[in-house]
Amino acid sequence: MHVTATFTDIYVAVSQFYGRQVQLLDSSRFEEYAQTFTADGEFQHTPGIPPARTHAGIVEELRRFNTRFDNDPVQRRHIFSMLNLSAWKDGAIDATFYALVLTTRPGVKQPVVGPSCLVRDVLVIEDGEVKNRSRQVEHDHMFSLV
Amino acid sequence: MHVTATFTDIYVAVSQFYGRQVQLLDSSRFEEYAQTFTADGEFQHTPGIPPARTHAGIVEELRRFNTRFDNDPVQRRHIFSMLNLSAWKDGAIDATFYALVLTTRPGVKQPVVGPSCLVRDVLVIEDGEVKNRSRQVEHDHMFSLV
Amino acid sequence: MHVTATFTDIYVAVSQFYGRQVQLLDSSRFEEYAQTFTADGEFQHTPGIPPARTHAGIVEELRRFNTRFDNDPVQRRHIFSMLNLSAWKDGAIDATFYALVLTTRPGVKQPVVGPSCLVRDVLVIEDGEVKNRSRQVEHDHMFSLV
Repeated sequence: MHVTATFTDIYVAVSQFYGRQVQLLDSSRFEEYAQTFTADGEFQHTPGIPPARTHAGIVEELRRFNTRFDNDPVQRRHIFSMLNLSAWKDGAIDATFYALVLTTRPGVKQPVVGPSCLVRDVLVIEDGEVKNRSRQVEHDHMFSLV
Repeated sequence: MHVTATFTDIYVAVSQFYGRQVQLLDSSRFEEYAQTFTADGEFQHTPGIPPARTHAGIVEELRRFNTRFDNDPVQRRHIFSMLNLSAWKDGAIDATFYALVLTTRPGVKQPVVGPSCLVRDVLVIEDGEVKNRSRQVEHDHMFSLV
Repeated sequence: MHVTATFTDIYVAVSQFYGRQVQLLDSSRFEEYAQTFTADGEFQHTPGIPPARTHAGIVEELRRFNTRFDNDPVQRRHIFSMLNLSAWKDGAIDATFYALVLTTRPGVKQPVVGPSCLVRDVLVIEDGEVKNRSRQVEHDHMFSLV
């Protein structure tokens, strides 16, 4: 993305970035998913657990997380929606959006729906490509009643 | 949006508008949600009930509607999809899209899914910003069998 | 779309194309849906069944498929998401995305959710308009355990 990139260009580049990134994740291509983060990127997808850091750390966290499916084959899908690019400062973009997780098991047409999440990303443009500097996921069923 | 705005610019501006608008709604920031409508905006989200009008009227209707959750804390999410900008006349845009409502309760990972809706918006550009002139929501489970 | 169309323009044109196309499908406007394919277009939406070909063939396949709802009135919705335009060669675009089917019955607020699908489209630009040259749908619940 050049210096002259417009809001329109950025919004579309981010949409395309998420389309590709999510399909990598749901195909268990964790190394390539990790590469969508900056080298010092932070990825926090489970509330209460400290964020994974660096590409190697993100891959390790995804492998650990997915061991739960070792004897329970599933096709997961993450549906991101309602993308809101809410700030642009020092070359970083705050992106806030919804994520809905679907989990399908072989032979069962209806996926398990949930959790529903709110995701807060910080994105940067590195050498013309969108990258995640950080991702923080909040789960809707863990909201505070205070 | 200038006079020279392209279809691409408009489509993205509308997508960003909905991302922000929905997050305001689902955060119960009803005053800010109402401000996404024009001063004389119309908001009709329950079939058979006349539309709310003006910012104050929209806030009042949302407060009334949400009293059902007073003793039943929930996190609601509205997922808009399949945006179709189908007409552009006298500066107004017809936007038609799907809306799926998700309702999550504390400690329950699976949201209640539904209703599924068809939304018909009329949008205008005021001082360079997208605004709702009107919104009309049809619920899929109330469709006519005629 | 002119020769000078940017990636941004294409991504938005494809998004708008899908918004309109899906609303035609879900309104049972099968002739108009078929017209969103090229004259020799291929449409394969049920694994194991050979693709329908040509506009007439696509209409016939959709009529055949939908006879299952003859005595079971429903409002179907297809939610496409996570659009990834992954290649551009000889004027054709590979588009990969998720599709989630929702089926609502009269008086029942919660739709039946599923199947969840992966869709592989080949798109072309004909006379400035996006068209499907082919569509291939994979169902998540039929994934191979090999």
